[in-house]
Amino acid sequence: MSKWVYAFGNGAADGGAEMRALLGGKGANLAEMCKLGLPVPPGFTVTTEVCTHFANHGQGYPDGLEAELAQALGQIEEIMGTRFGDPERPLLVSVRSGGRASMPGMMDTVLNLGLNDETVEGLARASGDARFAADSYRRFIQMYADVVLGVDYGHFEDRLQWHKEDKGYALDTELDADDWRSVVAAYEGVVREHLGHDFPQDPVEQLWGAIGAVFGSWMNPRAITYRKLHGIPEDWGTAVNIQVMVFGNMDDTSATGVCFTRNPATGENQMYGEFLVNAQGEDVVAGIRTPQPLTRAEREASGTKLPSMEDVMPNAFAELADVHVTLENHYRDMQDVEFTVERSRLWVLQTRGGKRTTNAALKIAVDMVAEGLIDEREAVRRIDPAQLDQLLHPMLDPEAERDVLGHGLPASPGAASGSAVFSAEDAEACVARGERVILVRAETSPEDIGGMHVAEGIVTVRGGMTSHAAVVARGMGKPCVVGAGELDVDSSSKTLTAGDRVVREGDRITIDGAAGEVMLGAVRTIRPEVTGDFEKLMGWVDDIRTLGVRANAETPEDALTALEFGAEGIGLSRTEHMFFEPERIVHMREMILADTEVERRGALDKLLPYQRQDFAALFEIMDGLPVTIRLLDPPLHEFLPHTAEEMAEVAAALGITADQVRLRALRLRETNPMLGHRGCRLGITYPEIYEIQARAIFEAAAEVAAKGKNVVPEVMIPLVSVTSEYAILARLVDTVAAEVMKKSATEIPYLVGTMIELPRACLLAGEIAKSAQFFSFGTNDLTQTAFGLSRDDSGSFLASYHEKGIFPNDPFVSIDTEGVGELVRVGVERGRAVRPDLKIGICGEHGGDPASVRFFQDAGLDYVSCSPFRVPIARIAAAQAALGEAVEIDA
Amino acid sequence: MSKWVYAFGNGAADGGAEMRALLGGKGANLAEMCKLGLPVPPGFTVTTEVCTHFANHGQGYPDGLEAELAQALGQIEEIMGTRFGDPERPLLVSVRSGGRASMPGMMDTVLNLGLNDETVEGLARASGDARFAADSYRRFIQMYADVVLGVDYGHFEDRLQWHKEDKGYALDTELDADDWRSVVAAYEGVVREHLGHDFPQDPVEQLWGAIGAVFGSWMNPRAITYRKLHGIPEDWGTAVNIQVMVFGNMDDTSATGVCFTRNPATGENQMYGEFLVNAQGEDVVAGIRTPQPLTRAEREASGTKLPSMEDVMPNAFAELADVHVTLENHYRDMQDVEFTVERSRLWVLQTRGGKRTTNAALKIAVDMVAEGLIDEREAVRRIDPAQLDQLLHPMLDPEAERDVLGHGLPASPGAASGSAVFSAEDAEACVARGERVILVRAETSPEDIGGMHVAEGIVTVRGGMTSHAAVVARGMGKPCVVGAGELDVDSSSKTLTAGDRVVREGDRITIDGAAGEVMLGAVRTIRPEVTGDFEKLMGWVDDIRTLGVRANAETPEDALTALEFGAEGIGLSRTEHMFFEPERIVHMREMILADTEVERRGALDKLLPYQRQDFAALFEIMDGLPVTIRLLDPPLHEFLPHTAEEMAEVAAALGITADQVRLRALRLRETNPMLGHRGCRLGITYPEIYEIQARAIFEAAAEVAAKGKNVVPEVMIPLVSVTSEYAILARLVDTVAAEVMKKSATEIPYLVGTMIELPRACLLAGEIAKSAQFFSFGTNDLTQTAFGLSRDDSGSFLASYHEKGIFPNDPFVSIDTEGVGELVRVGVERGRAVRPDLKIGICGEHGGDPASVRFFQDAGLDYVSCSPFRVPIARIAAAQAALGEAVEIDA
Repeated sequence: MSKWVYAFGNGAADGGAEMRALLGGKGANLAEMCKLGLPVPPGFTVTTEVCTHFANHGQGYPDGLEAELAQALGQIEEIMGTRFGDPERPLLVSVRSGGRASMPGMMDTVLNLGLNDETVEGLARASGDARFAADSYRRFIQMYADVVLGVDYGHFEDRLQWHKEDKGYALDTELDADDWRSVVAAYEGVVREHLGHDFPQDPVEQLWGAIGAVFGSWMNPRAITYRKLHGIPEDWGTAVNIQVMVFGNMDDTSATGVCFTRNPATGENQMYGEFLVNAQGEDVVAGIRTPQPLTRAEREASGTKLPSMEDVMPNAFAELADVHVTLENHYRDMQDVEFTVERSRLWVLQTRGGKRTTNAALKIAVDMVAEGLIDEREAVRRIDPAQLDQLLHPMLDPEAERDVLGHGLPASPGAASGSAVFSAEDAEACVARGERVILVRAETSPEDIGGMHVAEGIVTVRGGMTSHAAVVARGMGKPCVVGAGELDVDSSSKTLTAGDRVVREGDRITIDGAAGEVMLGAVRTIRPEVTGDFEKLMGWVDDIRTLGVRANAETPEDALTALEFGAEGIGLSRTEHMFFEPERIVHMREMILADTEVERRGALDKLLPYQRQDFAALFEIMDGLPVTIRLLDPPLHEFLPHTAEEMAEVAAALGITADQVRLRALRLRETNPMLGHRGCRLGITYPEIYEIQARAIFEAAAEVAAKGKNVVPEVMIPLVSVTSEYAILARLVDTVAAEVMKKSATEIPYLVGTMIELPRACLLAGEIAKSAQFFSFGTNDLTQTAFGLSRDDSGSFLASYHEKGIFPNDPFVSIDTEGVGELVRVGVERGRAVRPDLKIGICGEHGGDPASVRFFQDAGLDYVSCSPFRVPIARIAAAQAALGEAVEIDA
Repeated sequence: MSKWVYAFGNGAADGGAEMRALLGGKGANLAEMCKLGLPVPPGFTVTTEVCTHFANHGQGYPDGLEAELAQALGQIEEIMGTRFGDPERPLLVSVRSGGRASMPGMMDTVLNLGLNDETVEGLARASGDARFAADSYRRFIQMYADVVLGVDYGHFEDRLQWHKEDKGYALDTELDADDWRSVVAAYEGVVREHLGHDFPQDPVEQLWGAIGAVFGSWMNPRAITYRKLHGIPEDWGTAVNIQVMVFGNMDDTSATGVCFTRNPATGENQMYGEFLVNAQGEDVVAGIRTPQPLTRAEREASGTKLPSMEDVMPNAFAELADVHVTLENHYRDMQDVEFTVERSRLWVLQTRGGKRTTNAALKIAVDMVAEGLIDEREAVRRIDPAQLDQLLHPMLDPEAERDVLGHGLPASPGAASGSAVFSAEDAEACVARGERVILVRAETSPEDIGGMHVAEGIVTVRGGMTSHAAVVARGMGKPCVVGAGELDVDSSSKTLTAGDRVVREGDRITIDGAAGEVMLGAVRTIRPEVTGDFEKLMGWVDDIRTLGVRANAETPEDALTALEFGAEGIGLSRTEHMFFEPERIVHMREMILADTEVERRGALDKLLPYQRQDFAALFEIMDGLPVTIRLLDPPLHEFLPHTAEEMAEVAAALGITADQVRLRALRLRETNPMLGHRGCRLGITYPEIYEIQARAIFEAAAEVAAKGKNVVPEVMIPLVSVTSEYAILARLVDTVAAEVMKKSATEIPYLVGTMIELPRACLLAGEIAKSAQFFSFGTNDLTQTAFGLSRDDSGSFLASYHEKGIFPNDPFVSIDTEGVGELVRVGVERGRAVRPDLKIGICGEHGGDPASVRFFQDAGLDYVSCSPFRVPIARIAAAQAALGEAVEIDA
């Protein structure tokens, strides 16, 4: 015969932490604490199997349940020395649902169950507070009637309102004990009126009612929908936890509080918390009374005059200190503990891993290794890589006031203030005058790079997490908010409008790229300090991880930052970013608008020395490390002139009219540039472009190698979808390489490989690997094409998708392991089947996302490449992936 | 020991048709004809295995080859009664390459091998034409020196030129026998000068040289590249065919000609052809002399005074007639035969399936079934579906003169003339005045539909085979040329420019949609006649095929055309096309520009009656057949107003200013609309749109069902990439269906399913099939996303891709079986694994492409859906696919 009820209390329990499936998360945790000998209010858990039985048997209960439940109830009456329904010393309980996974839409909690017209007087006498007792009773009626009996909450609110109007009260606090008694009578009337019978006075009947309501709510439509969307099986069911109520507001020997086993702000190994005498948990939260410090040390540090718990309740405090030691030894982590003291007796209500600042997390992890509580691997496992990101960027002072204009997506962390400017040119001009600016745009494009570079931060009203602005800002380590759809930008009038508020050019604004907020005025920022603990931890990280971490970098500054943050090479150098400097862009435009190969070659020849110089700088810095250079990728119209002045300049260079320039530019316009004439398609139609780039790479390599440096170029051909595209262009690169090496009499070991960024390339990976020496997955484009979803345009509907739970995560932030992930796995398998030593990396934005890094480790990749500023995060994520366990800081 | 040489001649042969791998296509065919007892000039084939040996052994020959070759040579000397190198009666041979697959880049042919300074005189005597002999010799020297000895052709051309200048000749025909002898001497001098030795005089040495050159050319770079691109293995090798030369220009008892076993224009079962007495094959082709009719019947029909072969060479003619019977009985198809008569002796040089008009093809196939030569299945197999397409559209009179302005892609077959107009409005206005127009646009968009509908044909300068213009034109069965990149369109000045020629509004132009040509002026068109043979054949077709064929149709006209052409239902009804009529578009725009759900619902309510009426019309026409209706798919900005007048109209309807309309429209603009806010994403963000469409569908269904018709609606949700998108919207449709059915008290059997048109949907097909009742593959979008290739933008580089052999076929025309095909196969497998009775179709443009239809049959689909005008083609292709054999009309 099954066991349906699991009791806990008095240092013992039928269940334990490992019985999560049967008892739910809450029930398992309560049992575990009891077994640790912690003073948990006693109670029992009705198992999830009863829920399944209830659902499958017309809301009936299994045989034996009633007897087991009666026995468990008797056991807690014995522990507490009170009895359920006893008019003198009534035992009161809470009833809560609790499944394997937390789930909204279910009945949550009924408190104070066991109260009726008689026991309420017993509670009044026991607590010495008749008002509290009556208020508790009316809350119980209201809650029970609503969730168990199905009488709408509003009816009760009405009665309370009428009573207050009768009496001329404005606030609930004005009601005295008699007032609440009248309200109770009125509430009982509501129940009679709606149900035709009295509010149930029998506590046991009350209890069965509440249990039935919890189980019934498992099948309510909201819960069913939630389960469908989150893939929670119907047959998991929920458990019901029945637990004794304890009161911190019985008298002055009672109290309630929360405490951390270590300081959550600094990580110091000292108890830290606050409490209130003669109060309930909600009083601490409500902030009506000022909480008192827990320890004397805290009291001194804060300078408060309020006495500490250590002073006023030394026994309970000593007991709490012991509880802390037990908990830290058991959970081997800093704990956040809720407790109540009822008439000098300490009760622990809940414990969980405590939230902490990033620096505290680092210190606690490193300290616990020193204390022998955990090992280095566990310390690494504990760090939340996303949290670490904050540590590397300035943040808003949490004390500072904020006047939020609107919200967008948190595209690149950090906070910054500056004058609003509405074009890249204005940004550059203002900065040249010594101002700090925030660049505000509808969206950015490559020609805004200069302005983005000098700005403190960037705001766009369009675009998603991998829009141009987001990608570039993260690469630069600059705060950025994108897709702030509540705001309107008018670049002609140079205004940013939020409802009826208008920000004009030069007005100060502040952005928080981690929160996605745009604020009016300058909000104070602080820069988090990186401690020695960080270095120590990163050493462990690098010992553990097996996945390589490279950086995406084009400029010498990027490359230096990458090295500083521990990158092991450059995984993606986007050559197009190199063409936007003023002295280069004119030749680039000349090249694009040329009509003949001869004209194009003329322009390209002028670009060659610049490219050679760019590559030489990267090779020098990365001495001994691989540098992956992607040949030209974006559609050519991204480089085209816009202003009359620029057009005239290009026209002069080409010896044609500005009108002809305009017309040729018009011809290059595309409906869907993302799917247009770009990537290796440029190399196929204009081989001379790739030829010149290859020449620049190998000439630079020869030059730097001559200085005794170790040069490791990897030439990458983008957007391949057909095997022969790759074969033709790889041959071109090899030919140029051979030519340059012969001429310079230098042997340069190099690789030629391809981006795998289209579904067809993943499927044909076996064919492509016959000639490609490495693959680098471009998961941005792969996500766009697998979903048929433009990252630039999805801003308008992704919010709806998140809201409806269609995308649990933004697939541009964390890789979609089912769809895009299958394509990656197929690409790896088929590529390696043909060429077992195929080097495989990933250079999309997912390279810096911890969940994605874990996937890439599992998929067997050799390395990830991400923005320089995300390299430390990728390193930690890679180490955690190598440890093979999910990151779970908090349930 | 291997056999290296296969002889043929005198009614016998060592090889046969089945030995294509060993003997190459040409060698196998010559052997086959010999075995049929046809008078083929004798010869022998050196096998492909010798080629492989040659390549793998430093250009050396296998043991035994020399002896076998000498023996084979002796055998043909015996048959012919002449000897190789005999100065009196010299045997001359041709040497030709011939592999399993035809392949450019290889050495092709050396003729007249065996001539030298002595035998040339023998040839002069034998032919009685010293000039012919000398000319033949100098041609042989030139050809042999170029391809075997590596002396550039140009040097010989120079000598000939100098000789002509010395003599003051303008044309080759002015040279007499002595002139040619002098040229021969000069040519021999060139060889000496370049090689340091004489031109080889030994015929056997000549022969080995030619054989080595053929085998050597197998490994030349052009041949290697060609094989790589076309996946021809290196080890296939090529064979070499050595065959006796015969001359139709020996004297007046000699002749040469071509003939068809049946009339290639009408299909009538009568010999048909032409010949020339005392002439060589090239004289027939060159058109210098007028060829004579073959039969008396032809002579009478043409009214020529020239005598027929039947008259002047009755014996050879009778022999030829016998050859025809033999050939038709053997090949069971109409043959195109090349023959030569040398001194009254008939020689058959080549036979192959004869090209024929579509009507002839139909008649021949149907007649041959009646004659018992082939069965119905073979008759169906013989029809080229693409050719049939011509039969259903008007075509240019082949006799008419054409002044071609430029070329584009042959987007929709048929030919038409009309005045050029440059906007949809102008088209409608002109047609209202009674003119016929050709609509000329840079590209078209849905708002051009009205103009496209009234135009005779459409030309665009941008876009590919599945651009908007192409798809819509094919749907309407109208001629269309797209991507005519040589032309420039300026819609403001209303001109079409081709180089220095300018077409203005109102100028007459003609387009040929099957050839992709745009012509100046009105070129006469003819309409092919559909014969009774067509009906008979289509009956066999429908008996054979197992794949269903539906049509893509929105309007009642489309639906009626579809039925007429034999469609078995509607596979795709694009509801968006229904919103462009003037009285509807204003409400559509009102809906799109509304800010709130209430406003949107207001506008949708006005659209509901129109939609209901559209669907009711389709249901009535398709009585008993399924009608698949796709819910709204395109990005909303496609419907937006452009002119100030339209903006004012919408502004009035919404009670806002035109400026506000402009701003809201601006917000809807997308960077990559193809990957933007469209398809089911509209249904997720604005459920009320899909709700109203579902209501219109089911109300229409109930209405038509009430009239006693059998209504079979299939509601299709587009662009699904995530399972829950589908689940949410299918639930919405089901809810509306239940409501309408309850209200109307009508039970309507219906299906809800989805387009599978994104790579992720193919991969997740198993999940989607859990709730979807049918799949329809949208292979247009699937091709776009799998390749990352926009059909609208690929025009600018696809030409380069075809040229370089990267795309053997346009993947938008014939499905890419490797990449896109794998996605389809995966989708089918995973879908059927979950739901074995899942109904699966395809409704992209590939549905009307024969090669793709074959793929869909193999992939296990239930039906294809295509433009109404392509339904007959799809039916034939489906039957041929069911027969499981590739369509091969001609080698």
